[in-house]
Amino acid sequence: MSTTVSPLAPKHHPDMPAIGGVRLATAQAGIRYKGRTDVLYVAMDQGAAVAGVFTRSKCPSAPVDWCRENLKAGTARALVVNSGNANAFTGLKGRESVRLTAEIAGRAAGCEPGQVFIASTGVIGEPLDATKFEGVLAACDEGAGAGTWMDAARAIMTTDTFPKLATRRVMLGGVPVTINGIAKGAGMIAPDMATMLAFVFTDAPIGAPALQAMLQAGVRTSFNCVTVDGDTSTSDTLMMFATGAAAMNGAPFVANADDERAAPFSAALTDLLEELAQLVARDGEGARKIVTIRVTGAVDDASAHRIAMSIANSPLVKTAVAGEDANWGRIVMAVGKAGEPADRDRLAISFGGIRVATQGARDPAYDEAETSAYMRNEAIDIAVDIGLGQGAARVWTCDLTKAYVEINGDYRS
Amino acid sequence: MSTTVSPLAPKHHPDMPAIGGVRLATAQAGIRYKGRTDVLYVAMDQGAAVAGVFTRSKCPSAPVDWCRENLKAGTARALVVNSGNANAFTGLKGRESVRLTAEIAGRAAGCEPGQVFIASTGVIGEPLDATKFEGVLAACDEGAGAGTWMDAARAIMTTDTFPKLATRRVMLGGVPVTINGIAKGAGMIAPDMATMLAFVFTDAPIGAPALQAMLQAGVRTSFNCVTVDGDTSTSDTLMMFATGAAAMNGAPFVANADDERAAPFSAALTDLLEELAQLVARDGEGARKIVTIRVTGAVDDASAHRIAMSIANSPLVKTAVAGEDANWGRIVMAVGKAGEPADRDRLAISFGGIRVATQGARDPAYDEAETSAYMRNEAIDIAVDIGLGQGAARVWTCDLTKAYVEINGDYRS
Repeated sequence: MSTTVSPLAPKHHPDMPAIGGVRLATAQAGIRYKGRTDVLYVAMDQGAAVAGVFTRSKCPSAPVDWCRENLKAGTARALVVNSGNANAFTGLKGRESVRLTAEIAGRAAGCEPGQVFIASTGVIGEPLDATKFEGVLAACDEGAGAGTWMDAARAIMTTDTFPKLATRRVMLGGVPVTINGIAKGAGMIAPDMATMLAFVFTDAPIGAPALQAMLQAGVRTSFNCVTVDGDTSTSDTLMMFATGAAAMNGAPFVANADDERAAPFSAALTDLLEELAQLVARDGEGARKIVTIRVTGAVDDASAHRIAMSIANSPLVKTAVAGEDANWGRIVMAVGKAGEPADRDRLAISFGGIRVATQGARDPAYDEAETSAYMRNEAIDIAVDIGLGQGAARVWTCDLTKAYVEINGDYRS
Repeated sequence: MSTTVSPLAPKHHPDMPAIGGVRLATAQAGIRYKGRTDVLYVAMDQGAAVAGVFTRSKCPSAPVDWCRENLKAGTARALVVNSGNANAFTGLKGRESVRLTAEIAGRAAGCEPGQVFIASTGVIGEPLDATKFEGVLAACDEGAGAGTWMDAARAIMTTDTFPKLATRRVMLGGVPVTINGIAKGAGMIAPDMATMLAFVFTDAPIGAPALQAMLQAGVRTSFNCVTVDGDTSTSDTLMMFATGAAAMNGAPFVANADDERAAPFSAALTDLLEELAQLVARDGEGARKIVTIRVTGAVDDASAHRIAMSIANSPLVKTAVAGEDANWGRIVMAVGKAGEPADRDRLAISFGGIRVATQGARDPAYDEAETSAYMRNEAIDIAVDIGLGQGAARVWTCDLTKAYVEINGDYRS
């Protein structure tokens, strides 16, 4: 948790309502940090349908393995998240540590260990001493109430400079339901599950398979479209919990993601995920500018996405943005290296709506002074038209600054 | 051309002998830079067999297109290289500029334009005014002699902080032959033709198809194994010219790369290419440390190469090296994100021969103080054993420092 808040932090955090069936608590377990909370405990006493999307890393953390395994049963009673130690690459000890955490939490919540979901974020490779949760989680369960979501979002931060929260209220079968989400992540952020950790809760009565389908659909245009440094975490975890408490008010049970009554809910969920994903890009380590990259005219959407990610991950593009330089030559380079169909002589490139290149050369009308003035903005839009088809994509990233190097050269020390 | 030489620059540059059949000249055409040479002109009056390997960018520069096209005939009479302007993404004008350059050089050398090979390096997207070569190339041809290879290497530099030269003397059929190479490249350096520009000359009598085969074989373990920032240039060009002048001394003509008499030559060529590739990594923009990454135990060599490149391109690994932090957790992350077969619980990781992790966890014998002391070295070796098979690879990269961000945030201004 940095002492300097990113200049890209939102000016206001949303007011987060309570979610029926969800009790929150945070605590200081002293895992790594001093003088701050490092544990989030969430109890869902009547149980919740659960869905999850995880890192595609071939070397996932022990908690990721645990969640994947227990997701099959589809029911959650508790969530435990700690910051400071990722419990990744900790071998057999790591697996034992997760099991012990689940047992301690299960005793606190009065449920089976398999109904406890666990996420850890922080340093990789250090053994996590789960006995530190002993007592702490029981106290959490006793003290957990409607809780503050702000406290929850703060407890899971590592190098984040601001807490990340979003909320939506939407109608389901004529009944208002709520979706709350929190996220953390600032570095080691890449496609295929971008943020390290994000948790979404709703009181809507939605079955686990439908929840999983909606979550996966929402991830495509949100967390899978954000990158800070192209580095994929071992711990990336997005989980969603649906308590169904709104059924008491008459909200219908949604068993199938295609259920038409759930369409507004699904749209609101995607919207919330996009907001959280953007918050992650805004808190990119050392970021001073938030960059939106839109690719159109690719042969298909997947191709457009790969081109957009190639631009978003290019250190040369990102340093140019940091230097407030509309260096479209580097955009051409990044399009070219994506390996996707592209025709140099059809490319068009704009910064903030100012077209700088068209048909394979600098736009004759291009005004460098106008573009340079635009590049001084905090939010930078880059648009690339490939000129071949109808494929489109939009991704978010941030600039690459000296502060990124500073933060990541000193992280462990 | 930077005023501060990289601390990783070699202490001595090699003495480069003359190559029979090769005349060199450099000039100031005033393309972009002031007070330095920006043109290299090479005449091969009796002609030379020519081979080339180029960028895989889908948006290559106009000179790359020109060379690819003219390579088919297999004969070169002249090479023109300019620095300061890459003539990339310059549309129809760019193609005309290349043609005009070839015509001017052809008149100077007394050959067809199609026998002139051209490479350009520098800013992308700015039109290159080829009329600046008018007069300059004719004067080059008049003045070209045995020339100095140091001048040649200097004339093609852009953000390089030192010239890159290598030479080998090797026997071919009992007759000594020489191979000289020069290279430039410091940023926008990535696999699939890493350096932006490299040119190799020999007096050995080798046919174009054999030369092409040897060059492609040599690239695999040299330029395709070096990365500075993962960014692929639009202009990457490696060309080799064989004048055959050593035939006068009795060197046999090599028509086929499999010719056993050419084996030592082929090995010397690969060795020279590896030296040049390493020089490029040593001059990585802002580099303070040269990093060698060796991956063993992958399922096959291609898989090992992809894992090694994933490590070498990870901003988090590279900033950790800059911070002199043996952060093996980030190595695990980079192995995991490579998408190649890997088993977390079989990984072993060493820094400079000090094993820090084994069988999926920190090595019990690991001594952080010893490793930290090692990380203060200028040359850092990272070894990763995947524990699955026999696949191996070795790649070079450099650390990611604030200076990289500084150089690339200000390049155009």
